[in-house]
Amino acid sequence: MNTNTGKVTLLSAGPGDLDLLTLKAAKALAAADVVLLDDLANPDIVTLAPQARVIRVGKRGGCRSTPQAFIERLMRRYALKGLHVVRVKGGEALLFGRAGEELAVLREAGIAVEIVNGISSGFAAAAGLGISLTHRRHCHGVSFVTAHTEDHGEPDWAALAATRTTLAIYMGMRRIGSIASALLASLPADTPAAVVQWAGGIDERRLLTRLDRLVADATHAGFSSPAVILVGSAIGESVERAWGERDAWRDQAEVIQGGEPLAHVAIAHAA
Amino acid sequence: MNTNTGKVTLLSAGPGDLDLLTLKAAKALAAADVVLLDDLANPDIVTLAPQARVIRVGKRGGCRSTPQAFIERLMRRYALKGLHVVRVKGGEALLFGRAGEELAVLREAGIAVEIVNGISSGFAAAAGLGISLTHRRHCHGVSFVTAHTEDHGEPDWAALAATRTTLAIYMGMRRIGSIASALLASLPADTPAAVVQWAGGIDERRLLTRLDRLVADATHAGFSSPAVILVGSAIGESVERAWGERDAWRDQAEVIQGGEPLAHVAIAHAA
Repeated sequence: MNTNTGKVTLLSAGPGDLDLLTLKAAKALAAADVVLLDDLANPDIVTLAPQARVIRVGKRGGCRSTPQAFIERLMRRYALKGLHVVRVKGGEALLFGRAGEELAVLREAGIAVEIVNGISSGFAAAAGLGISLTHRRHCHGVSFVTAHTEDHGEPDWAALAATRTTLAIYMGMRRIGSIASALLASLPADTPAAVVQWAGGIDERRLLTRLDRLVADATHAGFSSPAVILVGSAIGESVERAWGERDAWRDQAEVIQGGEPLAHVAIAHAA
Repeated sequence: MNTNTGKVTLLSAGPGDLDLLTLKAAKALAAADVVLLDDLANPDIVTLAPQARVIRVGKRGGCRSTPQAFIERLMRRYALKGLHVVRVKGGEALLFGRAGEELAVLREAGIAVEIVNGISSGFAAAAGLGISLTHRRHCHGVSFVTAHTEDHGEPDWAALAATRTTLAIYMGMRRIGSIASALLASLPADTPAAVVQWAGGIDERRLLTRLDRLVADATHAGFSSPAVILVGSAIGESVERAWGERDAWRDQAEVIQGGEPLAHVAIAHAA
């Protein structure tokens, strides 16, 4: 262990709204010497680290503009100089996003690591929809899966459906057709489904529909990445009428209008 | 819609450490008229709402000291008086904990609701262990399930095992024997497993073992509720030697000692 080294904080930036950062994250940013900024994080986060050198290291979508190995080298280099490096990752660092690889690199180099948890977009999406992900009338839990196939094929959709848990599917918009088809082989056509784009951010858009109309509705309403797809009967809890095609609603009012059709219900967001 | 009503904030208090509250949560607490405090939340949270009337409404474990219906009546009553009620729930409000029922009651009463996300103990547990829950070398995702059988039986452990996702099992300590047995019918005996008690709090304790030794090791080390049980090959990522019986480690030092056996590795926590 080199006692002259600095440290690296793997910091979860949450889904976009800076108010969804933890107090611990704000403190780490205020103490940072170097900030490595993922482009899935809200760039305004750097206002919380005005003293730090900021390096943008994003790799959005399929375009890997900054290779992972380069990010890992940067973390190691600055920490070994004795600096406090804050590696900002969108959402929750420990849910999709290569924290495992980064932890292994840092451990091997003997560099101290601090992990700061955050809000993953699946939870922000549920807040936007005004639902519990695990309403006990419907399920025993929730499964967060990625449909990203870069490394090792697709999730086992039949097995996931068999769990009867709510499914929160990340990075699935490019494959939404094949995902819906696979799930329809195991789940009823009228299983509630939703898409939440930019969950937890000011541009959040929400679509509520049913599994057999998911692709058509999401396409019609122009939903695309980044978005979370939610499937399961718990998703239907906030709905007060039969499922049908409906647009996303974007009302940010402070009320829930009891008795109104879901498409017109507005879930309050923090001021 | 009664425009004279107040509102209710369903606030996720996170796993214990007040620094794991979001900035949004701190703002809601500072604006609260009434705080309804779950006993799974850190009671010191009320220091963030010194102006508010605090009512303790916990129901720890099997002892339902304050029935759910009473909590719901309190929320409704104060909100209908025009007050801002902050309902503090341990962990993440939308993951286990009856947010669904509370949302339905409030919606029916026409009361505005704001949901503030937080850190669930499963993520805090992963931070404590220094692992990603979804290391892409191992899995496509993570399933959060409860073993609580109050309402409708047990999860389908065989189906959950078949997903090959990491399993984060909440409220499972009283049934750890039957859970481990059920999972051993589908998963290899040497599947990495962990227990994290009081995850994210100052009393956090962690045990790392393998599935076939989970019950013996957790019993020997005196682990009990509240704790999260983690099972899956991703859990083994931070381990550098063969699995064996080992005690929980509680070192809070700021370093990861590369090359040391896991039992002696200390994952840094925020100062």
